[in-house]
Amino acid sequence: MTLPFGTRVMDRLDTLAGFTDEPGRLTRLYLSPAHKAAALQVRQWMAEAGMAAAIDAIGNVAGRYEAAEPGRPALLLGSHIDTVRDAGRYDGNLGVVAAIEAVAELHRRGERLPYVIEVIAFGDEEGVRFPTTLSGSRAIAGTFDPASLASRDAEGTSLEQALRSFGGDPAAIPALARRRERVLGYVELHIEQGPVLESLNLPVGVVTAINGASRFTIEVTGTAGHAGTVPMDLRQDALAAAAEMILAVERRAKGAEPGLVATVGRIEARPGAPNVIPGQVAFTLDVRAPADQDRHKAVEDLAAAFATCAARRRVRMKLDKTYDEPAVTCAPWLVGQLAAAVERAGVRPHLLPSGAGHDGLAMVALCDVAMLFVRCAGGISHNPAEAITAEDADVAVAVLLDFLRRLALPA
Amino acid sequence: MTLPFGTRVMDRLDTLAGFTDEPGRLTRLYLSPAHKAAALQVRQWMAEAGMAAAIDAIGNVAGRYEAAEPGRPALLLGSHIDTVRDAGRYDGNLGVVAAIEAVAELHRRGERLPYVIEVIAFGDEEGVRFPTTLSGSRAIAGTFDPASLASRDAEGTSLEQALRSFGGDPAAIPALARRRERVLGYVELHIEQGPVLESLNLPVGVVTAINGASRFTIEVTGTAGHAGTVPMDLRQDALAAAAEMILAVERRAKGAEPGLVATVGRIEARPGAPNVIPGQVAFTLDVRAPADQDRHKAVEDLAAAFATCAARRRVRMKLDKTYDEPAVTCAPWLVGQLAAAVERAGVRPHLLPSGAGHDGLAMVALCDVAMLFVRCAGGISHNPAEAITAEDADVAVAVLLDFLRRLALPA
Repeated sequence: MTLPFGTRVMDRLDTLAGFTDEPGRLTRLYLSPAHKAAALQVRQWMAEAGMAAAIDAIGNVAGRYEAAEPGRPALLLGSHIDTVRDAGRYDGNLGVVAAIEAVAELHRRGERLPYVIEVIAFGDEEGVRFPTTLSGSRAIAGTFDPASLASRDAEGTSLEQALRSFGGDPAAIPALARRRERVLGYVELHIEQGPVLESLNLPVGVVTAINGASRFTIEVTGTAGHAGTVPMDLRQDALAAAAEMILAVERRAKGAEPGLVATVGRIEARPGAPNVIPGQVAFTLDVRAPADQDRHKAVEDLAAAFATCAARRRVRMKLDKTYDEPAVTCAPWLVGQLAAAVERAGVRPHLLPSGAGHDGLAMVALCDVAMLFVRCAGGISHNPAEAITAEDADVAVAVLLDFLRRLALPA
Repeated sequence: MTLPFGTRVMDRLDTLAGFTDEPGRLTRLYLSPAHKAAALQVRQWMAEAGMAAAIDAIGNVAGRYEAAEPGRPALLLGSHIDTVRDAGRYDGNLGVVAAIEAVAELHRRGERLPYVIEVIAFGDEEGVRFPTTLSGSRAIAGTFDPASLASRDAEGTSLEQALRSFGGDPAAIPALARRRERVLGYVELHIEQGPVLESLNLPVGVVTAINGASRFTIEVTGTAGHAGTVPMDLRQDALAAAAEMILAVERRAKGAEPGLVATVGRIEARPGAPNVIPGQVAFTLDVRAPADQDRHKAVEDLAAAFATCAARRRVRMKLDKTYDEPAVTCAPWLVGQLAAAVERAGVRPHLLPSGAGHDGLAMVALCDVAMLFVRCAGGISHNPAEAITAEDADVAVAVLLDFLRRLALPA
């Protein structure tokens, strides 16, 4: 079956997947040779779609499709073309290829809209190569920190050196910042990276917020002892205490505030011998929610629950925050119009938060943001098994195109 | 303060602690030079206490204190003089030194009892050097397996080679087996290695059983996923499931069958990243009880609880047995008379199981066994911080001596 958009989108994603830094698997790090090759390919597709396209000073590819009249502001579309190591081919790349496809259709039909469309392929969303991340979107949003040019990758190459080798220009980064009054908003199409749409049998969904996230390390200190000689009622078992805390995390997050998730992903018990009662346990806690107050309340409740558990079990508990990023709420006027476009495509509009981070985290400093999610197989991402269907890609491009054509600008 | 027995016992334990294979810490492995030096010292003390003493073919030191009349059977006393690495000085050694001290007192006073006393310092209780263990007590019990002579230590030295270097004689091991009808029983004095006596403020306690032990590895397999994108109700979190199982272990063991203990000492969650829901968790389970049927019932109940938990959470669970050793029940006639001697010493007789293994596990194949436990600081053992007081050692020797003097043999 040939789909008006989906077949070409999938072909192009396969083409992009060939640009890798590691033979045999897809790894395309920011400012690498594979990134450069992919950027050149994207620029060519943009040009073929009627856009004035160029690779900018920080390594983004930006293509501009003019409005029906001069002097109009721009709606920004896009996503990123860098990947994690051993990546799937849809994360990021789909949003770039789909946006180009939508513009290409306008171009084929000779349509101009009452606003400029700018498609941007960001180069640094995954944050795998350098300790900093979102460099491309921060540059566009005007929040790029020049100090991060000194940050180095594992080989000791600085971001500045890498950028120069790529053909970028550190000195020209400040000029990349868009003027607020010239930007209508930023809309990104992306795979869901979670199982919700699949479980609801829906090809696409509209994102309400990019969740805020807090991460912690929790240390529980009890008393180590011989597994055979210390009676149950004389134990201060750090692992039993941690187990109770882990279940408290699950219980607190389940069926609570909408979209709230909490995860214990790492645990270590010491000394870690089968015949020794654990005296020390360290575990991580990751809490995310669309609403910051929900996240903060959950963290507060969990810290209190941990303390109560520790006191009752006569163990010590220490909780350290290691990461904190506020949520980004998607702009209602964009969410509403995306949802309407989804409905016009014959799909029940489902609203859902994004648990993963995206370029919108940076773009919100410049403008309103919104996202359209596309169903992916099994919710799997950051993995070669990442998969979407051509049919879903087709629906996604059709929805995006319809949204663009009918977009009503806020008063 | 000079105590009739305690002061000398503590002095001798300090002397023995000087015999180590590692300068700066106490490590005395079976058949090592330090073991040989300690054995020679013990043999000398035995001789000074009026015993006919020798190092036997498998490296035990055995001293014989004759009865008032010839032809009488023997009561065996003793413990082991090998240690773990970086050991305390009381584990094992106390039982040997205390038994010699009790005999020395009889000898000083010219007392002979209606039975022979044989004190044995076993050489291989900890099982640290070779994969096999209890070689010395098995030889005495007649259950030594000659195949274990081929087992090798980390340097590749076989038990047979090590035994010959030590001065032992593999061919003479079978002749070490005592004849059942010539043995009344085996009584061992040992530090508790647990916190019970300290918590009860008692210097000594009488052991009812050496607990049987079963060990398992449990594998829980759920589905790994992005900590931000998978909603709580779509998760198959292997760590949350394992946490529930760990609490089930604690709940099942607590306040259940007397002496039952169950421990999860090791846990590993994979992939083990803070932002990934664990897809696989492996943990260990150690279950011990004085009564085998209690242990088996607890294991059965836990296996069922794990399966129920796994089914409810839609994860898979696999339980593999890695170790199984039946319990040894101490002989009631010996337990009763030890308890009576404790009471005569002005100490409330407290009965408790031994959670750790001892030479009695092998000796029970030959004869009835019993043990007297001595309080140790904080329940700490297998650690240089292991500690007892001279006062408690004094009480222990006095109780043992009184027990020996008044021992009523079974009809």
